[in-house]
Amino acid sequence: MLTLYYTAHTCSLASHIALEDAGAAYELKRLSFKTADQRSPDYVKINPKARVPALVTPRGVLTETPAMLAFIAQSFPDAKLAPFDDPFAFAEIQSFNSYLCSTVHVAHAHRMRGYRWADDEAAFVSMQKKVPEAVTACFEIIEQTMLRGPWVMGDSYTIADPYLFTLSQWLESDGVDLTRIPRVLDHRARMAARPNVKKAVDVELAE
Amino acid sequence: MLTLYYTAHTCSLASHIALEDAGAAYELKRLSFKTADQRSPDYVKINPKARVPALVTPRGVLTETPAMLAFIAQSFPDAKLAPFDDPFAFAEIQSFNSYLCSTVHVAHAHRMRGYRWADDEAAFVSMQKKVPEAVTACFEIIEQTMLRGPWVMGDSYTIADPYLFTLSQWLESDGVDLTRIPRVLDHRARMAARPNVKKAVDVELAE
Repeated sequence: MLTLYYTAHTCSLASHIALEDAGAAYELKRLSFKTADQRSPDYVKINPKARVPALVTPRGVLTETPAMLAFIAQSFPDAKLAPFDDPFAFAEIQSFNSYLCSTVHVAHAHRMRGYRWADDEAAFVSMQKKVPEAVTACFEIIEQTMLRGPWVMGDSYTIADPYLFTLSQWLESDGVDLTRIPRVLDHRARMAARPNVKKAVDVELAE
Repeated sequence: MLTLYYTAHTCSLASHIALEDAGAAYELKRLSFKTADQRSPDYVKINPKARVPALVTPRGVLTETPAMLAFIAQSFPDAKLAPFDDPFAFAEIQSFNSYLCSTVHVAHAHRMRGYRWADDEAAFVSMQKKVPEAVTACFEIIEQTMLRGPWVMGDSYTIADPYLFTLSQWLESDGVDLTRIPRVLDHRARMAARPNVKKAVDVELAE
């Protein structure tokens, strides 16, 4: 049994969808940022980084979305969520997901988490002002050079898809110029129509 | 044949060391930030993100250090740089490397690359001021909860090691409190003594 610690409206949605896609047996544990659950002593024992998501497995805890997604894909090979027998094709997925975590998610995070990188209000405001431009630039690169269509990697649905869908949830609130990324929006709509995605989103928003 | 595009003093060193560790046939192409080589039209064709590193393979180009490291490890299985037959153990490595790219490298980057996330000089100064604290916090978590010793994953040397070593190059210039991370320093010294590491470092600094 796997246990996913998640928070609604965060990147934990990607692993949640992947668990559905994999047909995994799992349970969910909800954390609320409002009550700072992610900093509670009990949770910090699970994830010393005091962040979501975390995936508790029989072997131990895994954190960081690209790693959790790869673990889910490799643990449930019948779901064919990543080609582990093809080093280049697998690395392409890891490259895409790594870009999402290290650049796209980070550009987004400067809207609400400026305190990670500065201490004064003026700097937070300055960071927030830049978010629409910085996040739009990231998604334009995805639009023009990465997203093959209909899925990120082309004809095969992979663990890159739920992750892109998850970060695409924030486009409007980040002030991204949507007219520049029609193919990303098309991907988001295609993802939203999948029953597994609907189920995960509904569960997360039902509270 | 593989071709690594690299710049001295950047995270490309991790893949450079891994190529040595793997016993791969590869060639190096050096880019200088001083002449903005990474933004030249020729290079942007290779990596539209206009960043280093990039690894040109017979199947296409790979970017993003965690993906390149996994590709090198999986392409040269005899070097045993990652346990691809053990989904949990492999995911632990990916989790570590993902933390380095999405959190540690990002904390460091606010010292010199504030223009990615803000537009005014005051914000850059504010970000720079926070770097020692933010990067120290990252390395303390590594010290206390991740680095098993003697190598990152314990007794087995893996692709997590050259990546940690690479980011450890910047501790002093980031103003990290070294007294708080003796095990990270020990790891850095152990890495620096390896012939493959010496060779890669010497080549990068020889110009």
